[in-house]
Amino acid sequence: MWNFSAGPAQLPKTVLEQVHARLFNFQGCGCSILEMGHRTDEIRAVFATLEENLRTLLQIPRHFDLMFMQGGGRMQFAMVPMNFLQETGCAIYCVDGTWSKGAQERALRYGQIQTCSMGADPFARATAEHAYAYYCDNETIHGKRFACTPRKHGARGLVTDMSSNFLSRPIDWEEMGLVWAAAQKNFAPAGLTVGIVRRDWLNMAYSYTPTMMNYASYAYGHSMPNTPPVFQVYVAKLVTDWLLAEGGVERMDRRAKARSQLLYDVLDQYPDLYVHEVPRAFRSRMNVVFHLPNEELTQEFLSVARQNDLYYLEGHRSVGGIRASMYNAMPIEGARRLAFVMKEFAKKV
Amino acid sequence: MWNFSAGPAQLPKTVLEQVHARLFNFQGCGCSILEMGHRTDEIRAVFATLEENLRTLLQIPRHFDLMFMQGGGRMQFAMVPMNFLQETGCAIYCVDGTWSKGAQERALRYGQIQTCSMGADPFARATAEHAYAYYCDNETIHGKRFACTPRKHGARGLVTDMSSNFLSRPIDWEEMGLVWAAAQKNFAPAGLTVGIVRRDWLNMAYSYTPTMMNYASYAYGHSMPNTPPVFQVYVAKLVTDWLLAEGGVERMDRRAKARSQLLYDVLDQYPDLYVHEVPRAFRSRMNVVFHLPNEELTQEFLSVARQNDLYYLEGHRSVGGIRASMYNAMPIEGARRLAFVMKEFAKKV
Repeated sequence: MWNFSAGPAQLPKTVLEQVHARLFNFQGCGCSILEMGHRTDEIRAVFATLEENLRTLLQIPRHFDLMFMQGGGRMQFAMVPMNFLQETGCAIYCVDGTWSKGAQERALRYGQIQTCSMGADPFARATAEHAYAYYCDNETIHGKRFACTPRKHGARGLVTDMSSNFLSRPIDWEEMGLVWAAAQKNFAPAGLTVGIVRRDWLNMAYSYTPTMMNYASYAYGHSMPNTPPVFQVYVAKLVTDWLLAEGGVERMDRRAKARSQLLYDVLDQYPDLYVHEVPRAFRSRMNVVFHLPNEELTQEFLSVARQNDLYYLEGHRSVGGIRASMYNAMPIEGARRLAFVMKEFAKKV
Repeated sequence: MWNFSAGPAQLPKTVLEQVHARLFNFQGCGCSILEMGHRTDEIRAVFATLEENLRTLLQIPRHFDLMFMQGGGRMQFAMVPMNFLQETGCAIYCVDGTWSKGAQERALRYGQIQTCSMGADPFARATAEHAYAYYCDNETIHGKRFACTPRKHGARGLVTDMSSNFLSRPIDWEEMGLVWAAAQKNFAPAGLTVGIVRRDWLNMAYSYTPTMMNYASYAYGHSMPNTPPVFQVYVAKLVTDWLLAEGGVERMDRRAKARSQLLYDVLDQYPDLYVHEVPRAFRSRMNVVFHLPNEELTQEFLSVARQNDLYYLEGHRSVGGIRASMYNAMPIEGARRLAFVMKEFAKKV
């Protein structure tokens, strides 16, 4: 079957095979990875390798620290302002979908928040009064993405939610303060959140920030202020091994372009059946979102898709319609199959 | 090998075999449990079964809600006062080890905290000014446990950290407000924290409490305020299936008593070699903690233990010495083997 789930999502087949093959005896320790103490040499080595792999894959400069956290995106919505807002008490958020809207709404509790929209130069109004300029690089629910990294202008730096396209495109670190990503879309099973932070952005947290919500606790504590989610970190390490073997992030970028183009071509060919509202420049390469003219056709399409082994294509419950999520682990054959079924369906109805 | 790690710790062999056997095709869905969307019917059923299993195993009254969270113990240290301290601004903590001390220190940020010590009636001084009375039921590092549930006296109710002995003894719900447990000792792999809360204790949080630190977000959102750690919840469900098949929590209680008694008998037999400082009434059944007269003997003992397939017996880095952690998954044979090796070692030195 082909799994088009938006997340938790498909993992590379090789990675699942490795997890399976090594489940009972982790590196000859005689026990499972699920039973290994987090402060053993073996698990510390897993963390270190994951960090090195990420530094290689994303060319992360040495003045950035890596953090492996729990709690997911909604935890980050509070952590970002708690850690960074204090300096000026004001930040600017680019709001263009559910995730950036959620982040902005949470941030309102901690200071003054201005908003702007996705566009050629979203942070054009950003000044020195903005402690950071926040955006969500890929909006999974609405199928929109930033074509390239926006400029921060006067703001201190960028904060980027890359939950749904982490490791699928290179990152421009020049103006970046923090990149964070919940793992369950493109990186690892649910239960892990990765953060990559400029070291000189640490230690600016509001004094009331709980220890476990302070980035410094993770950056200075080798991501072990307490027991980390060892299994997810292990799978993430295997995913990065696979990415390196497959040719790295630029290769993933090209694959994502190729996969999504197959579907966008069908949308453009049948615009009355497959209604798509995202401007061409902002089309997501991870989540192709569209809807059919009515609910009956939508259900019929989903049914035909399932008959063709294409699963979890339902749009997010807040918007309905169809969403085809295709992360790094999705082979081009999956996209081809879906494009074919969409065309056949369009010819019939 | 026998794994005496304090946590992440040993899981039941049956559970590991089930994870292994079902890794690629979860309930005929065609994809792995690691790739399943959390809002699918199959995963909702896993959550529901885990909840029902826990309600059966621990006889949880219907006016308590279950919560499956991320973040571990140190996150709870802040969540407990943030959620419960507001009403009187004051609570009482029984401080008798690293974990209760950590909880008390964190709580100081949020209000006035009084302390007491483990004993026959630790909360004898508790009055209506105490929003809750907090204790750690089993201190893993110091090998101490409460022989029975303390009385709350005037306090509104008890808050209990059962991270290291959850599901190893029945819980007296009568005076309980919240029981919480990080999973990685006796319940599931690291990355999951379970909470069981009286429903009328929800909605008392300080207004500044972040959404993801508010118990109500989990209790009212079926533990899905965002993407939960699906895999850990799945393993926890398998662990509770196993517990039910094995005869439940009272059976585990008897097993824990039998296992630990084997070791305490050796400590009592060789008190000059195996130095043990915990009063008899407070001896932990999960973590048998002792030290040898000097570091050379300690290292020799650990080496002999490893030669006999007994691993991860090192005491916590803050106290040194020896710690034998034996949770529900440890067969009595492991304890027998360790007791035998300890006796042989004592005869030789």
